[in-house]
Amino acid sequence: MIDAEIVQRFREILGPKGVIDDPDDVAPWLSDWRGRYKGASAAILSPANTDEVAATVRLAAELGVPLVPQGGNTSMVGGATPPVDGSALILSLRRMNRIRTLSPENNLAVCEAGVILSTLHEAALAAGRRFPLSLGAKGSATVGGLVSTNAGGTQVLRHGSMRALVEGIEAVLPDGAIFDGLSALRKDNRGYDIRQLLVGAEGTLGVVTAAALRLVPAIADRAVGWAGVAGPEDALRLLRHLEARLGDAVEGFEIIADDGLGHVLSHIPGTRSPIATRTPWHVLVEADYAERREPDARALLETALGEALEAGIIADAAIAENEAQAEAFWRIRESLSEAERAQGPALQFDVSVPVADMPAFMTGAAAAAEAAFPGSTASSFGHLGDGNVHFHVRAPRGTPDGPAWIKAEGETISAFVHDTVVAAGGSISAEHGIGQMKRAELARLASPARLSALRGIKAAFDPKGLFNPGKLIP
Amino acid sequence: MIDAEIVQRFREILGPKGVIDDPDDVAPWLSDWRGRYKGASAAILSPANTDEVAATVRLAAELGVPLVPQGGNTSMVGGATPPVDGSALILSLRRMNRIRTLSPENNLAVCEAGVILSTLHEAALAAGRRFPLSLGAKGSATVGGLVSTNAGGTQVLRHGSMRALVEGIEAVLPDGAIFDGLSALRKDNRGYDIRQLLVGAEGTLGVVTAAALRLVPAIADRAVGWAGVAGPEDALRLLRHLEARLGDAVEGFEIIADDGLGHVLSHIPGTRSPIATRTPWHVLVEADYAERREPDARALLETALGEALEAGIIADAAIAENEAQAEAFWRIRESLSEAERAQGPALQFDVSVPVADMPAFMTGAAAAAEAAFPGSTASSFGHLGDGNVHFHVRAPRGTPDGPAWIKAEGETISAFVHDTVVAAGGSISAEHGIGQMKRAELARLASPARLSALRGIKAAFDPKGLFNPGKLIP
Repeated sequence: MIDAEIVQRFREILGPKGVIDDPDDVAPWLSDWRGRYKGASAAILSPANTDEVAATVRLAAELGVPLVPQGGNTSMVGGATPPVDGSALILSLRRMNRIRTLSPENNLAVCEAGVILSTLHEAALAAGRRFPLSLGAKGSATVGGLVSTNAGGTQVLRHGSMRALVEGIEAVLPDGAIFDGLSALRKDNRGYDIRQLLVGAEGTLGVVTAAALRLVPAIADRAVGWAGVAGPEDALRLLRHLEARLGDAVEGFEIIADDGLGHVLSHIPGTRSPIATRTPWHVLVEADYAERREPDARALLETALGEALEAGIIADAAIAENEAQAEAFWRIRESLSEAERAQGPALQFDVSVPVADMPAFMTGAAAAAEAAFPGSTASSFGHLGDGNVHFHVRAPRGTPDGPAWIKAEGETISAFVHDTVVAAGGSISAEHGIGQMKRAELARLASPARLSALRGIKAAFDPKGLFNPGKLIP
Repeated sequence: MIDAEIVQRFREILGPKGVIDDPDDVAPWLSDWRGRYKGASAAILSPANTDEVAATVRLAAELGVPLVPQGGNTSMVGGATPPVDGSALILSLRRMNRIRTLSPENNLAVCEAGVILSTLHEAALAAGRRFPLSLGAKGSATVGGLVSTNAGGTQVLRHGSMRALVEGIEAVLPDGAIFDGLSALRKDNRGYDIRQLLVGAEGTLGVVTAAALRLVPAIADRAVGWAGVAGPEDALRLLRHLEARLGDAVEGFEIIADDGLGHVLSHIPGTRSPIATRTPWHVLVEADYAERREPDARALLETALGEALEAGIIADAAIAENEAQAEAFWRIRESLSEAERAQGPALQFDVSVPVADMPAFMTGAAAAAEAAFPGSTASSFGHLGDGNVHFHVRAPRGTPDGPAWIKAEGETISAFVHDTVVAAGGSISAEHGIGQMKRAELARLASPARLSALRGIKAAFDPKGLFNPGKLIP
């Protein structure tokens, strides 16, 4: 247990602004935003710069105090929630929120860990560039958290996840040493890639204090379309067709089941189906160009969708006539989780398999889950082109007590879905990470070689186990 | 020392074809192709499949025999040469040379470690795709070596180095466990990225037995141009201009000093300057398109170079009229090392700095080296767009004994150049790796945080130090 004396030691190095221990101020940061995990902590440590982070880490090592790094606290897997026993302190990076440099010439932004994603978006746009990664939590999620969880989103198809966008990292390692890998070298073969190791490490190998992030040209011309298809197979055929026609301009490609669309139309006011034909599956597609050309994006997408219609790949299609309509199309996709929650209790899985295998997985896994758990319904939506969907198993209609159903069935259904994923050569965490939510399942399903590598690396960096205890490493 | 009894133990698990111990057959693999390093080894172990590799590794662990993984043995830094004391055996992957699958639909080739790069090139082309990484040693270099050294080349600007092209890895770890990370998942957040850790590990963390590699569409339309510029600053301006006009079609962008061109014209028969104007620096540029369009690649590049001429960014330019001329332009670039060797003794450095800083580095470092070592001349050429050049310091004209000069001055000049690189925030190894050649310099120049991370990871994977001893880890 952390006592007042220990907190005082940190206050001596961080000053009064650097330590928050009023329980009312600490409380909001003790649970995750979905309310699934609740921890305890005597204080939030909030250093103002990298040197203060290093001093904090050294003192914590000296005192044997575990630290839970935290950015915007938007983890989907309880990755930033402290242990329940109050044994750890929260290490918040939110005060380190400076964009150190932003160079449009070099397409590079060096951001401190606490920079909020939407702030980076705005700064990049103001400089005629953009940072091509976005997600629902963009108003809270921070650069440090995005790096540490290798965040994804809807633009991975073209631009990759954070791993591909990080050109440099500054971090404080568990021994208090500052790892200065911020210099944005496009080529660097001085041994193991420590930067890539810190990406997605969920704060278990140290704490990311800043990152050099790649920017891309701003969008000059954009087209958003909607297509109705018979199934995921045809959706993937459509993607390959669009890639052949539009190249890597295809930036968004999301698949949505018709029942998911139905839930949005039922529960989200002001939404309507973009197409008149009722089809079992839908695809939202966006093509983006950095320059204006003739034919423009809309004409190119229209032609390509027309060809797909003629070839029988799709059954119907619509192109957004203007920005408002484009936003309306995207709103359907972005409201899916909310609509599903309004519809009833469900277990949600963030899984991936090889792209080519995803159509068979989507239909096969849903049928298998429905057969194994009579009365439940299963479907998926999301990033087909990345081989990553969010797979939902919904409680039988009329289930009176959602949380009780989840408590009773959650573990069995999770094991079933994860076993199906593993059998398909896939990953039980595509973009959300492991955190505390999937730790036991990782232990159950990872190969001995992977587990021993994870444990070995963890022990090499953090032999005392002080960084984000209880997360990731089984 | 390895005796016949030990070799016999390996023969029992690998069969007669799996062990080469006739000294005449072993000899060619004991030194690097540049003849800088010469080791000794009683035998080459040559397993036929992954299970045999695992059995070999387990037996080696049991017997305490160090292993030196070897592919095409084309390392630039002595990375695949065994220790001189004969204490290790060579673990050759050359028999594992099967392309397991090649799927044009999925843009993916799963290759065993011993597949030779040019074989992969041909197989991809036959399927209407290409593998977008090439280098001088493509007729010998193998997939396993390319992965293990994170190889680069002249297409990194657009497609990245091996790190970006590897979608999956199968490896045998030092404890003999098979790490099966071959499933090509575009998204996988199950903790630390073990695959990325094995890329560029130079065989010190285990041995790569197969890799899933990303293919891209074949080139349908190609344009190759040459431009004369006043200096590296203008060359970088030209690159930015071409990127603004041609987007990521710009696949090759190589800078060459006029003295380097002069050496090629002097020493390589049949070469001529592509432009009539004498300029201090030159740029070779290639733009590639996967589809034919109007205007075509040549017209697009011609227009863009014309604009650059008008804007005063370049002084002269030429476009290759046909494939033969395109090859002739590239031949100049590819003959640079050979021409430099013919010109006289030189020390060669493979270094990187942030792209934006490279022009100042190229001119500044050359001037500094020439001032520090009177009589010597220095210049650089290579991948400006990656912030990576090959920097040469040549012996004073008329130096009678090249090797003696290198022996006398090598260490001092190396230290000088590397210090200059580190001061510029750069890397002493951009694409060639550390091997045995740069190990001492890495120890001297890497930050304590990096060194301790490298050592910690090595110890976690290979506590007995049996994998590629004497390489990479100081």
